Amino acid sequence: MKRSLISYFIGKLLQVEALLLSFPLLVSFIYQETNRQKFAYASVIVGLLALGGLLSYKKPSSARLTAREGIFTVALSWICLSIFGALPLVISGEIPNIFNAFFEIASGFTTTGSSVLSDLSILAKSTLFWRSFTHLIGGMGILVFTLAILPNSGSDTVQLMRAEVPGPVFGKIVSKLSQTARILYMMYISMTAVLVVVLCLVGVPLFDSLLLSFGTAGTGGFGIDNAGLAIYSNPQLVEWIIGVGMMLFGVNFNLYYYLLIGYGVEAFKDEEFRTYLGIVVVATLAVTFGIFASYGNIPDALRTAFFNVSSIITTTGYSTADFNQWNLVTQMILILLMFIGGSAGSTAGGLKVSRIVIYAKMAFAELRRVGQPRRVVSPRFNKKVVEKSTQVNLSHYLLVYILVFILILFSVAIESKDFTTAFTAVAATFNNIGPGLGEVGPTSNFSGYSNWNTLVLTFSMLAGRLEIYPILILFAPKTLKEITRLKFLKA
Amino acid sequence: MKRSLISYFIGKLLQVEALLLSFPLLVSFIYQETNRQKFAYASVIVGLLALGGLLSYKKPSSARLTAREGIFTVALSWICLSIFGALPLVISGEIPNIFNAFFEIASGFTTTGSSVLSDLSILAKSTLFWRSFTHLIGGMGILVFTLAILPNSGSDTVQLMRAEVPGPVFGKIVSKLSQTARILYMMYISMTAVLVVVLCLVGVPLFDSLLLSFGTAGTGGFGIDNAGLAIYSNPQLVEWIIGVGMMLFGVNFNLYYYLLIGYGVEAFKDEEFRTYLGIVVVATLAVTFGIFASYGNIPDALRTAFFNVSSIITTTGYSTADFNQWNLVTQMILILLMFIGGSAGSTAGGLKVSRIVIYAKMAFAELRRVGQPRRVVSPRFNKKVVEKSTQVNLSHYLLVYILVFILILFSVAIESKDFTTAFTAVAATFNNIGPGLGEVGPTSNFSGYSNWNTLVLTFSMLAGRLEIYPILILFAPKTLKEITRLKFLKA
Repeated sequence: MKRSLISYFIGKLLQVEALLLSFPLLVSFIYQETNRQKFAYASVIVGLLALGGLLSYKKPSSARLTAREGIFTVALSWICLSIFGALPLVISGEIPNIFNAFFEIASGFTTTGSSVLSDLSILAKSTLFWRSFTHLIGGMGILVFTLAILPNSGSDTVQLMRAEVPGPVFGKIVSKLSQTARILYMMYISMTAVLVVVLCLVGVPLFDSLLLSFGTAGTGGFGIDNAGLAIYSNPQLVEWIIGVGMMLFGVNFNLYYYLLIGYGVEAFKDEEFRTYLGIVVVATLAVTFGIFASYGNIPDALRTAFFNVSSIITTTGYSTADFNQWNLVTQMILILLMFIGGSAGSTAGGLKVSRIVIYAKMAFAELRRVGQPRRVVSPRFNKKVVEKSTQVNLSHYLLVYILVFILILFSVAIESKDFTTAFTAVAATFNNIGPGLGEVGPTSNFSGYSNWNTLVLTFSMLAGRLEIYPILILFAPKTLKEITRLKFLKA
Repeated sequence: MKRSLISYFIGKLLQVEALLLSFPLLVSFIYQETNRQKFAYASVIVGLLALGGLLSYKKPSSARLTAREGIFTVALSWICLSIFGALPLVISGEIPNIFNAFFEIASGFTTTGSSVLSDLSILAKSTLFWRSFTHLIGGMGILVFTLAILPNSGSDTVQLMRAEVPGPVFGKIVSKLSQTARILYMMYISMTAVLVVVLCLVGVPLFDSLLLSFGTAGTGGFGIDNAGLAIYSNPQLVEWIIGVGMMLFGVNFNLYYYLLIGYGVEAFKDEEFRTYLGIVVVATLAVTFGIFASYGNIPDALRTAFFNVSSIITTTGYSTADFNQWNLVTQMILILLMFIGGSAGSTAGGLKVSRIVIYAKMAFAELRRVGQPRRVVSPRFNKKVVEKSTQVNLSHYLLVYILVFILILFSVAIESKDFTTAFTAVAATFNNIGPGLGEVGPTSNFSGYSNWNTLVLTFSMLAGRLEIYPILILFAPKTLKEITRLKFLKA
C-alpha cells in the first residue's frame, strides 16, 4: 500500500468535506438557529480542516495507485466521509446515537434515502439541508468532485473514478480525466439548477426547491417534511415535475454530453436508454392498472403510478403513496424495479438497466440454443456481440451480488418481523432505494434495528453504492494484514 | 421431428403406465373398494393399452434422436404420463377437477409432494397408493425405467436419459446405457425395500411402510394420513428412520454404485457429498438452536430439526412441524435449503449441491481477484479446475432459472395473499419440495389457486423436475411450428 499517497487523498477529501459542511453552517446562521446547532457544524469543520491538513501535509512524489489501492481508497473515503458527516447530528443532539447518525448520513451520501427518523420536524433547517446536500454530492461521486476541483490530479486517479462511477462500464468521455469529471459535474449542477428554478416557478419556496432538487438529482430521496408534497400550493404539478426530474437523472450522463456536443437524437438510440424508457412506460401502465381501483380516476392513478415507478427504478425512494396498501402484483413490480435500477453512468443504484439487458439476453440466447448445441447464439448489446469474458464477469458480479445479499438478509432477519420486511429492507438499502415494504415501508422507517443491524444495513448501502467490491476489499484478509503492518490508521 | 420414433416411444411409455396402474387396481381389489373405484383404474388401463398400442404399432427403422428431439420427447412424456395418471382420480370422483388432478399427479411424478387436498381421508387406499407410487417412479425417472425394461433400446436413447436424470452432469457408470439404467433401478429398488422392511420392523403397517418408503425414496413427500406419523406406535423412531432415509436418497447414486463395486470409502471423498453432509449438519444445528425455545428439550428439537432439514434439502417435503410458527431466521434457513436441493444424480430437486458449490466458488474466486485483474483464480471442483465454458453454462442456467422463477412468481402473485406465500409457493413447486410458507405452509395446501395458476404451478413442478429446458422447448416457436406442420398430435 502506498500509504502516503492514500493518506494524501483522504486528507484532501476531508478538507473538501469541511468546505461542504460550511453550507449547512451558513444555513444555520441564516435561520438563526441555536448556538449548539452552529457549534455542531463549526466544530466538525475545524476538526476536519486540521485532520485533513495533517494527512495531506506532505505531497507525495507522483506515484500511481494500483487498481486494488484505488478501490481501497474509495471505500475508505466513503466510510470516513459518512462518519465525519454524521458527527454534527450527534453533537447537535438531533440523532444522539452514532450508529443511527452514521446510517443516516451514509444513506445520504449513497443516495439511498432510508432514514431512522420517524419525525422530520425535530431537525433543524441546517440539518435538513445537510442531509439532502449529501445526496447531491454522493450522486455523482465525491471523489469525482474532488478530482474536478483538484489541480493536476493526473493520470493516477483513473482507478478512483472507475470505482466510484456506477455501472459496469466506465467511459472517459474526453481524454483528460479531470476534465471529464468537470464536464460531468457541470452538466449535473446545471440540470439541478434548472430543476430548482422550475420548482420555484410553480410556487415551491426556495429552500424546499433546493432540497427537493438535491434529492432528485442524486436520486436520493430524503423527505423534507412529514406531510410530503401536500404542503405546496400545487402538489400534483410538483409531483409531475419531480417524477420527470428523477427519470432524467436516471439516464447515463454520457448521453447528455453527446447531445451537448451535437450528436442530436442519435445519442438516444442507445439500447440501455431505450430499454430504460420502455420499462418505465410498461411499469407505469401496469401500476396504473393495478392501483386504479383505489384511486377511482385515471389522472390520479397515472400520476401516482408514474411518480412511484420513476422513484423506484431510479432508486430515489420519494413516495407519494403507501405502497404497503397496494395489491401484491403491483408491489412485486416495484420490488422488481428495485433490482433493475437506473442506467449505468447515472446517479441511480440497483443492478443497472444495461446489466439486466445483458442478463436477459444471455438467458434468451441460452434458450434459443437449447437442444441445438452446435448453434452459436451470442447476445448483442448496442449491436455489438457481448464478449464471452464480459459475460463471465457479469455472471460473477451477479453471483457475488446474490451471495452478499443473502448474508445481509440473514443478519437483518434476526430482528425482522416477517420475510417481506427483511427482504425489502435489504433490497432497499443494497440497491440504494430508501423505503421497502412491510415494517420498513414508506410510512415507516429503519429505526427498529439494533446497532449491529443498523451497521449491517449501512454496510449494505455503501456496498450497493460502490458496486460491492470496494467495500468487500476492506474486509479481505490481505488488506487487514497490510493495514496492521503499515499501521495505516495511526497516521 | 422424427414423428414415428417419438410416437413409438410415447406409445411404449403409455403401455408401461398401464402396467403401473395395475398396482393400484390390485390394491383396489385387495381392500374391496367400490366398483366405481375399480372402474376408474381399469378403464384408464384399457385406454392406455389401446392408445399405446396404436402409437407404437409400427416399430420405426432404427434412427437416432437429435438432442432437441430427445428433450422434446421427455417433456411430452412427462406431461402425457401426468395427464393420463390423473384420469382415475377424476373418474372416481376423488378429485373431480381435471386441473387439480393433473396438478396432484404431476406433483407425484415430479416428486414434489404439493397437494390440493385438505383432507386425505376422502381418498381410497388405491388412490393413496397410486399417489405415492408415482413418487417412486418419478424419482429415478420413468424413461430411465422404460429403458431399463425395454429390450434393445440401443444407443439412440442417451438423449432421453440425459434430459431426465437430475443434475448438471450425467455420467454413464457402465458403457451400455440400458445396463446403467438397470443398475440404477436395482440399487434404488433395493434401498427402498430395505426401508420398507425397517419400517415394518418398528411397527408400521405394511401398507403405510410401502407408501412412506415410496415418498422417501423418490424424495416426494405426499402425506398418507391427516395425522402424520403420530398414528404409529413409535412415532419418534419412525421420524428418525425416515429422516435418515431421505438423506440417503439425496446422495448421488453413482457413489453407491462405486461403493458397491468395491471403491469403499474412497467413493465418499466426493466434494458434492461432503458439502451436502456439511450443509445438513450445520443447518440441523442452526435449526435446533432456532426452535429449541419452543420444544424445551434437546432430543425433540434436534429430531424435529434434522427431520425437517433433511426433508427440505432433499426436496421431499414431509413435515413434522408447522414451520410457519418458527422464527424468521429459521424459516429462511429452510427457504435457502429449498434452493440448494440435493445432490446431482439423486432423486432430489432444487439447484443441486454441486451447482451451488461451483456458484459459491465462482463468487469467491471473483472476490479474490478483485483489484488484481492480472491474477488468475480458477474455481476447482473435486480438485479439477472448472472450465470457463462450464462456468458460462452454469451461469446461463442460473439466469434462465431466475427468469422463469420471476415469470411464474408474477402469475402466482395475482392470487396470493402475501409475498411470502407467492414466493414460497413458487420455490416449493419449482424446486419440487412440497409445502411452502404462509398460505401454502405445511398445515395448508395448494387448493386456493384458480385453474390457470394450478396449471402454472404444475408447469413449475415439471420445469423444475426436468431442469427447465425440456419444458421450455415445448413452447418454443420453432417447436410449435413443427408440431403444427407435422400434425404430430393427430397421430
